[in-house]
Amino acid sequence: MALRAGDHSQAAMTGVKEKVLTLDTMNSSIRRVEYAVRGPIVLRALELEQELRQGVKKPFTEVIRANIGDAQAMGQKPITFLRQVLALCAHPDLLNSPNFPEDAKRRAEHILRACGGHSLGAYSISSGIQLIREDVARYIQQRDGGISADPDNIFLSTGASNAIVTVLKLLVAGEGRTRSGVLIPIPQYPLYSAALAELNAVQVDYYLDEERVWALDVAELRRALRQAREHCRPCALCVINPGNPTGQVQTRECIEAVIRFAFEERLFLLADEVYQDNVYAEGSQFHSFKKVLTEMGSPYAEQQELASFHSVSKGYMGECGFRGGYVEVVNMDPAVQQQMRKLMSVRLCPPVPGQVLLDVVVSPPAPSDPSFAQFQAEKQAVLAELAAKAKLTEQVFNESPGIHCNPVQGAMYSFPRMQLPPRAVQRAQELGLAPDMFFCMSLLEETGICVVPGSGFGQREGTYHFRMTILPPMEKLRPLLEKLSQFHAKFTQEYS
Amino acid sequence: MALRAGDHSQAAMTGVKEKVLTLDTMNSSIRRVEYAVRGPIVLRALELEQELRQGVKKPFTEVIRANIGDAQAMGQKPITFLRQVLALCAHPDLLNSPNFPEDAKRRAEHILRACGGHSLGAYSISSGIQLIREDVARYIQQRDGGISADPDNIFLSTGASNAIVTVLKLLVAGEGRTRSGVLIPIPQYPLYSAALAELNAVQVDYYLDEERVWALDVAELRRALRQAREHCRPCALCVINPGNPTGQVQTRECIEAVIRFAFEERLFLLADEVYQDNVYAEGSQFHSFKKVLTEMGSPYAEQQELASFHSVSKGYMGECGFRGGYVEVVNMDPAVQQQMRKLMSVRLCPPVPGQVLLDVVVSPPAPSDPSFAQFQAEKQAVLAELAAKAKLTEQVFNESPGIHCNPVQGAMYSFPRMQLPPRAVQRAQELGLAPDMFFCMSLLEETGICVVPGSGFGQREGTYHFRMTILPPMEKLRPLLEKLSQFHAKFTQEYS
Repeated sequence: MALRAGDHSQAAMTGVKEKVLTLDTMNSSIRRVEYAVRGPIVLRALELEQELRQGVKKPFTEVIRANIGDAQAMGQKPITFLRQVLALCAHPDLLNSPNFPEDAKRRAEHILRACGGHSLGAYSISSGIQLIREDVARYIQQRDGGISADPDNIFLSTGASNAIVTVLKLLVAGEGRTRSGVLIPIPQYPLYSAALAELNAVQVDYYLDEERVWALDVAELRRALRQAREHCRPCALCVINPGNPTGQVQTRECIEAVIRFAFEERLFLLADEVYQDNVYAEGSQFHSFKKVLTEMGSPYAEQQELASFHSVSKGYMGECGFRGGYVEVVNMDPAVQQQMRKLMSVRLCPPVPGQVLLDVVVSPPAPSDPSFAQFQAEKQAVLAELAAKAKLTEQVFNESPGIHCNPVQGAMYSFPRMQLPPRAVQRAQELGLAPDMFFCMSLLEETGICVVPGSGFGQREGTYHFRMTILPPMEKLRPLLEKLSQFHAKFTQEYS
Repeated sequence: MALRAGDHSQAAMTGVKEKVLTLDTMNSSIRRVEYAVRGPIVLRALELEQELRQGVKKPFTEVIRANIGDAQAMGQKPITFLRQVLALCAHPDLLNSPNFPEDAKRRAEHILRACGGHSLGAYSISSGIQLIREDVARYIQQRDGGISADPDNIFLSTGASNAIVTVLKLLVAGEGRTRSGVLIPIPQYPLYSAALAELNAVQVDYYLDEERVWALDVAELRRALRQAREHCRPCALCVINPGNPTGQVQTRECIEAVIRFAFEERLFLLADEVYQDNVYAEGSQFHSFKKVLTEMGSPYAEQQELASFHSVSKGYMGECGFRGGYVEVVNMDPAVQQQMRKLMSVRLCPPVPGQVLLDVVVSPPAPSDPSFAQFQAEKQAVLAELAAKAKLTEQVFNESPGIHCNPVQGAMYSFPRMQLPPRAVQRAQELGLAPDMFFCMSLLEETGICVVPGSGFGQREGTYHFRMTILPPMEKLRPLLEKLSQFHAKFTQEYS
C-alpha cells in the first residue's frame, strides 16, 4: 500500500515495513533461473574449504573442484606469449625492456596503435577493436580452408556466454502459443536453460543419444520440434560441439543433417564451438558449422542463419578470468544485425584485455617469429596432456562396476552414467534431493571431490550422471578417479 | 510458415526464403532500445574519420570525440601504479624485475594469492574475489566516516553498467497496470532508458531543475510518482550523483529529502555514484547515499533498500576499457540477495583485470609506501586539470550569446542549453530530425566536433541541449569551445 505525502512521521513510527523487493515482488523469471555449475554443491565446497582453513577435521585435506572448466585454477600455466603481450600492453614502459621478445613487442605496439589514446584503458568500439576483428576474420578463414569471413560479422564479447545471451535476446518474442521456443541438447550446458528462463522463452529439449557416444540424431530433433509446435513457436536450434557436458565431437555427416534440418524447419542456428581446439580422440575432427554450411552450397550457404561462438576461456589457453570471446554471424538480416550492434553499444565494450588475448589466440606467432617454438611447445604440451587425461578418465571409470563413461572425444569433461541403488534414490527423495545430487553431496562431504550432478544439465529420466572436468593435474587425476569410483562402490553397497 | 519434413528438396528449389530472424519477428523490446551516446552521430563520426584517413577533404583535420566520458582516449595517461600492479599480475615473471617498486610487487603477490591457481586466468567467484570485496568494504567504510560495510553486500561487476542492469532486472515484474515503474532523472544517462526498454519496464521521468543547477526537487518526484501510479507500479528511484549528463553535485539536504521520499513511498533506491571522485566546484562535496541514510538513523538506516554503484572507468583513473566496477546493496532482502548472487553466477565472473584495478583504486598506496608520492601527484594532477576544464567550459559557453551553461560542479560533462532559431527547428522537422540532432550533425560535418544532442538524454520540451565532455586536453579544449560557440552563432544567423 502506498503512503501519501505527509504520512512520513507516521510511517516512521509504525516500525519495520516489508521490503520493497522480496521474493514475491521480484522478477519471477529470475527466480526460475538455475545454474548448477555454480549451484548448491559449489557453495558447500566453498564452505568446506573455509572449514579446512579454520582447522576443522575432515576425512580429506583439500577440496578438489572438478565442477568447472577452469584450467588455470587447476594449475595449468598460462601460455607465455599471451601474457607477455598483455603485460606490454598494460604497461607500455616495458616496451623498452630487453626481457621481452621482439615479436611480443611488435604485437603489443600493433594492438596499442589500434586502441583509443593508444591505451587499454580507453573504451573500444562496441563490437570490439577493428584490427582484432580483422584478425579473427583471418583466423576463421584459415580454419575453414579459405572460406572468407567478414570482420563486420564478428562481434567481440565478454566471454562466449555474453554473446550467446545477446543472440538469444534478439530471438525471443511473443506470448502464449507464439512464445519463442529454442531447441537445446539434453544434457546441455546450463547457461542455455538459465538464459531461456530469464528471457521467458520456451526451452525445447532434444536428447543426445548416450548409446551412440552422445550423437545428435535428426529424428530426435524432429520429435522435439513436432511436440514443441503444439505449444510455442520454435525459432532456433542450439548445438554444442564439441559437447559440454558430454564431450562428443560431431561428425561432418551429422552437422550436414542438422543444417538441412534447420533450413527445412526455418530455425536460426546457434553453434557453441568454444571447444574447437579441444579434440582428442583418434578419428575425431572439428568441423565448424560455418564451413560445413558454406561447403553444402546453395541454398544453405546463402540462406541459413547461423551464429557461431568462440572464447579464450577454453582450448589450450584457458584464460577464463579475462572474459574474452566472439560471435560470428552468418546470413543474418542486416537490419537485425544493426539492432544487435545497437544492443551491444549500451554495454559500451567488451573488456579490452580479453580482446588482446583473443588477438594473440587467433593470430599466434608465425614460424619465422622468435616466440614460435616456445608457443607451439607450450600449446602442444597442454593439448597432449588433456588428451591423455581424457583417455585415462574414460578408462578408470569404465573399469568401475556401475559406472559407464563414453569416450571423451573433446571438450574438458566426462559425463559418466552411474547406477544408484533404489534405496539411495528413496533416501534422496526423503531429503528432497535429486538422487544424483544426493550422491554428489555425499561424495563431496566424504572425499572433498566436487563434481556436478547430471540433473543440473538434464538427463533421461531414471538415469543418473555427473560432470567431472578432466583438468586436475595428471598426478592428482588418477587417485581422484579411483577415489571417486571407490566411493561409488561404497555408496552402492551402503544403500543396497 | 513451417515446412514439414520431406519438403526439403522443394524448399531448396523455391529460391530465397525470408529470414527467420527479421525486424518483424525479433524481440520488440530490443527494437525500442536507444542509446544516444553511441548513436547515429557517433557512427557518422566514425565514417568521417575513415574519410579523413582516405584523404577526403573536409573543413577540419580531425574528429574530436567529445561524446563519451573516455578520458584515456582523449590523451589522459593511466596512473602508473595501477598499470604496474596489473602488468605484474598478468606476467608474474616480472616479480623478479628490479624495475618495479616493492609495493607494486607486494600488491600483485597479494592479489595473485587470492586468485585460483594464483593466476588472473582463473575464474573468480561470481561476486568477485573475496580479498578485493574486503578491500572495497574498507574503502567504503573509510569514505563514509567509519560506517561499516559488509563484503558480502558487495558484488564486483563488468563496469557499473552491468551491475545497474542486474539490479534493474531483479526489480522488474508485472504486466499492464502492475508493470514495474522506475523513476529516472531527465536528463538521464541513457543506459537507464535503454535497460528499461529492454526489460519492458515503465520509465517514469522526473525533471531536474535547470534553473537551480539541475537540482533534484522532491515536489517534482511526487508529481512524477502520482501520475505514474495511474498506469503502473512504481517500485524504484534512480539518482545519478554527481550528475550525468548534468554535472551537478547534490547537497546533503537534497539527498536526505530523496531518502525520506523513497522511504515514504516504498521505492528501492539506485544511487549511481560513479563520479564520486569527480567533484570540482567550491562548496560542493560528495555525500554517498549510504552514509546519509545511515546517519539519518531509524527507520531509514535499517530499512531503506539501496544499491550504490561505482566504477574504475571514471574518477582520476579513467580505466574504461577494463570494465571494472561494483555495487553495494544495503538492506536488501537476504532471499533476493541470494537470487542476485545466483543470477550473477550464470555469467561466471567479472573480468579479473578490472577487479585488480578496482583493488588498487579502493586501496591506493599508503603514505609509507614507495609509490605513494607519485600516485598522489598523478591523481591530483588529473583532478586539478579536470577542475580547470570544468571551469573553462562553463566560462566560454556562458560568454556565447544563445548558450547557457550551468556550473560543472562534478562528473565529466557540460550540458549547455542553446537557443535554436525557429527556421532551424522547422528545417530539422523537414529532415525528420530532432532540432538538437540537426544542430549536432551540422556541427560535426563542419567542424569535426562530436557531441551528443540533448534529445538523447531527455530534456524539457522546447529546450535544446547537447552533452560535451570536458576531457579534451587543455590546449585543445579552449579552441574547441570557441569553435563550437562560433558555429552556434553562425548556425543561428544562417537560420534567422
